Amino acid sequence: MTIACELCDAGAGDILVSTDQLRVILVDDANYPGFCRVIWNAHVKEMTDLSESERAVFMQAVWKVEAALREVMQPHKMNVASLGNMVPHLHWHLIPRYTDDAHFPNPIWAAARSDAGEQPALDARRLLLPQLRQIIISNFSS
Amino acid sequence: MTIACELCDAGAGDILVSTDQLRVILVDDANYPGFCRVIWNAHVKEMTDLSESERAVFMQAVWKVEAALREVMQPHKMNVASLGNMVPHLHWHLIPRYTDDAHFPNPIWAAARSDAGEQPALDARRLLLPQLRQIIISNFSS
Repeated sequence: MTIACELCDAGAGDILVSTDQLRVILVDDANYPGFCRVIWNAHVKEMTDLSESERAVFMQAVWKVEAALREVMQPHKMNVASLGNMVPHLHWHLIPRYTDDAHFPNPIWAAARSDAGEQPALDARRLLLPQLRQIIISNFSS
Repeated sequence: MTIACELCDAGAGDILVSTDQLRVILVDDANYPGFCRVIWNAHVKEMTDLSESERAVFMQAVWKVEAALREVMQPHKMNVASLGNMVPHLHWHLIPRYTDDAHFPNPIWAAARSDAGEQPALDARRLLLPQLRQIIISNFSS
């Protein structure tokens, strides 16, 4: 690695879980409380650059986080994506989506809805974050 | 299933591979030749609704398609996403991305670049589609 990569900084962000191979971050996004990222520690660009067993470890972590998000945040739908166009270092976005959120039914990367801003349920969702932290940590310790 | 779901129609789209559990579709997107979808045949909403072994089958198919896309289309980056806000029936988008494509470095769901339209390499990429078909089919028969 000769070019600086922000995801190579293993100490950055609100880290919920950290293993030798990956870490789970709670993303600070005003519109999307509960948004998590699972980041592979090594600077690898594509899933098919990993070995089959590494991919299995990575995806198992993604599904542990999804299970916790569904249990605690009760989203209408889960969005799961590995993009990395700007930061080509493997990471998965896990975003709990709700019919009243800022972009629904579009992806969060689309333009916001014209009626966004009225999200009365956001405060209630933010109150779930301490429980989400606990469940994610617990899902990785069992 | 009481509500009509377009992804429950197993015969729709340009099907490259079809198994008992899933199918691979070549998406007809003018800006993104090579865009593929892997669709779970059963009407299931979330990855964590599948069993561990079903998830493994599904993701193994996704990585076979990614491998073929990288081999043939040589993208700058792969984008892989399971969203399903509009159609809550499990499907993975696999999109080969290039620095000169219509949205790079943004996700394809963001607003197009203001300088989009000048994509001289698009024709060359479209010419690769017959080879892509072959390699995807071959990856699933081995």
